[in-house]
Amino acid sequence: MTSLDDLPIRDDLRGRTPYGAPQAHVPVALNVNENTHPIPEDVAHDIVARIAAAILRLNRYPDREFSELRSALAAYLGHGLTSEQLWAANGSNEVLQHVMQAYGGPGRSALGFAPTYSMYSLLAAGSGTEWIAASRDAGFELSPETALAAVREHDPDIVLLCAPNNPTGTPLSIETIRAVADAARGVVVVDEAYFEFADPGTPSALTLLDGRPRLLISRTMSKAFAFAGARVGYLAGDPAAIDALRLVRLPYHLSALTQAAALGALAHADEMLAMVDEIRGQRRRISETLAELGFAPARSGSNFVLFGGVDDPHAVFEQLLARGILIRDIGIPGHLRVTAGTEAETTAFLEAIAVFAPAGRNKIDV
Amino acid sequence: MTSLDDLPIRDDLRGRTPYGAPQAHVPVALNVNENTHPIPEDVAHDIVARIAAAILRLNRYPDREFSELRSALAAYLGHGLTSEQLWAANGSNEVLQHVMQAYGGPGRSALGFAPTYSMYSLLAAGSGTEWIAASRDAGFELSPETALAAVREHDPDIVLLCAPNNPTGTPLSIETIRAVADAARGVVVVDEAYFEFADPGTPSALTLLDGRPRLLISRTMSKAFAFAGARVGYLAGDPAAIDALRLVRLPYHLSALTQAAALGALAHADEMLAMVDEIRGQRRRISETLAELGFAPARSGSNFVLFGGVDDPHAVFEQLLARGILIRDIGIPGHLRVTAGTEAETTAFLEAIAVFAPAGRNKIDV
Repeated sequence: MTSLDDLPIRDDLRGRTPYGAPQAHVPVALNVNENTHPIPEDVAHDIVARIAAAILRLNRYPDREFSELRSALAAYLGHGLTSEQLWAANGSNEVLQHVMQAYGGPGRSALGFAPTYSMYSLLAAGSGTEWIAASRDAGFELSPETALAAVREHDPDIVLLCAPNNPTGTPLSIETIRAVADAARGVVVVDEAYFEFADPGTPSALTLLDGRPRLLISRTMSKAFAFAGARVGYLAGDPAAIDALRLVRLPYHLSALTQAAALGALAHADEMLAMVDEIRGQRRRISETLAELGFAPARSGSNFVLFGGVDDPHAVFEQLLARGILIRDIGIPGHLRVTAGTEAETTAFLEAIAVFAPAGRNKIDV
Repeated sequence: MTSLDDLPIRDDLRGRTPYGAPQAHVPVALNVNENTHPIPEDVAHDIVARIAAAILRLNRYPDREFSELRSALAAYLGHGLTSEQLWAANGSNEVLQHVMQAYGGPGRSALGFAPTYSMYSLLAAGSGTEWIAASRDAGFELSPETALAAVREHDPDIVLLCAPNNPTGTPLSIETIRAVADAARGVVVVDEAYFEFADPGTPSALTLLDGRPRLLISRTMSKAFAFAGARVGYLAGDPAAIDALRLVRLPYHLSALTQAAALGALAHADEMLAMVDEIRGQRRRISETLAELGFAPARSGSNFVLFGGVDDPHAVFEQLLARGILIRDIGIPGHLRVTAGTEAETTAFLEAIAVFAPAGRNKIDV
């Protein structure tokens, strides 16, 4: 039987294993920061109707420029954005891949602040871009001074700021974003995948776009919009910076089904986002309860909580899984990560984790 | 206003323009080799029902390994294939991108036989792979000797054989494919995007898979399956060769909507493919009529015909467009390309082109 080692794969791929969050089927899946609330029924009906209409022309290629979708995304984001300032692709992973392909590549570098979204380094590798992992401050925070020092030291072609940060949940101040955007020579991407879960009043990096043509802000419909299965990520920036992505995207990269589904969801944005408040409430409940239990939750502006104070993360992960509760061991010593689910899912998690609370603190009522 | 030149895009992208078949809206669109027959109504209903079911879980990430789809594709292809020998992505462009990323890259090369599918060179460039365009024999044919000479001269890491070839339509003999597969050091991709339109009895490169772990055969649902808008390409090969693609694909690259739609179409493969005979009939009619008119159609095993003997391709293209008929000027001097449409679309094209028949031959009844 032929093995991977017998095949002429690229040298830098040898010995690597594919990205792999477990795909276990469990009653309570709180591992990949999905929105655990299904799409509201009336919205689902509208999406199905739009898809049924699109199927009548499915024998034809889709709109390569996805013009209607770009307009709808601009309208959703507001801030005076227009359609030519918007881009979209099959998930924000593909959006960021386009950015790497257009602005990175061999001989160029991308800088991020570890621990951060694990796909950044893989996307850099996939495009031949050197990946530089700089450090954060205590508690996974990132001050303007720390960020600027790394940008000045490494002078990267691309900076990736995850705001709030995954997998730590840490909010990123607009001051840090502004300082990096003004100091960096290259492109600055602010990944706002979880922005809708930030505390009300938190300014988006979109407020900094004006006059900064190298600033790009990525978003996703996977999280707040409960659309992970539809694979829709998007990006806002200067029209010229967006136009550059047309040089590297594959023609017709967004299917007619994807475009129809996304337009349906955006037409019901208010209703789709109604559950965000509820999820933010569960996230606060998780943070507060974990703190009371003696764990050390990181500050979160997202729909998940990273918490320290776990003696044996792997063992706790396994024991929760045995109880039908899947969370995430993202490899930070002493830490685990959990998604804020529905009230019932959150309760199930908090009851299960209480057993592992630091000594003498496990009697609390969750 | 910022222009592309003001932005730090990759040096090799400077001055390039995006892929751009015109997206004109005309009554008779025969320019991008779509299947001009809509999906049958009962199949469309089943696809909508499957998508409606998938939407109930659209808040969750899709099956990253698209296992059910891989099984269905294996069953469709036959030849004893199993699911681990199948791969799929958003169009065969993305499938081929995965191949380039896994087996090509900086310092490696890919060889094709020009004129051939224009995306090959762009996909090579996008992955940093050197693109080598070798020549064909007269009439766009490719003999085993000609192909072998190029493979021996250039010793490429990837060979791309388009069978039948786009944009010429030329069938590729199984002898040429076998000779290249046995001689090449690297990976050999046989792009069978248009295979279903080949004359009955034409052997697929799938018959050569056994014992050749570096042979990959790509297909698409865009053409025979009338599914261009759904963006589904796929690939068959050795399980290890397929596994390598998991190292470069983006996680969750195939949406739940795409997986549901493709499964629906494959469940009705016989009905979806019923129009292939009709399209092949129109292709023969085009070839025969163009020959009678004095044009020089290339031999075609696809759903389109490339024809020479056109004095001024650009002028003819424009004059047909003015009459609402969009065909393709693919830049081969003296040639134009037309897709075989429905009987009515084909008649419209043949009536219009007759006006431009080589002198004295334009009186024929189409």
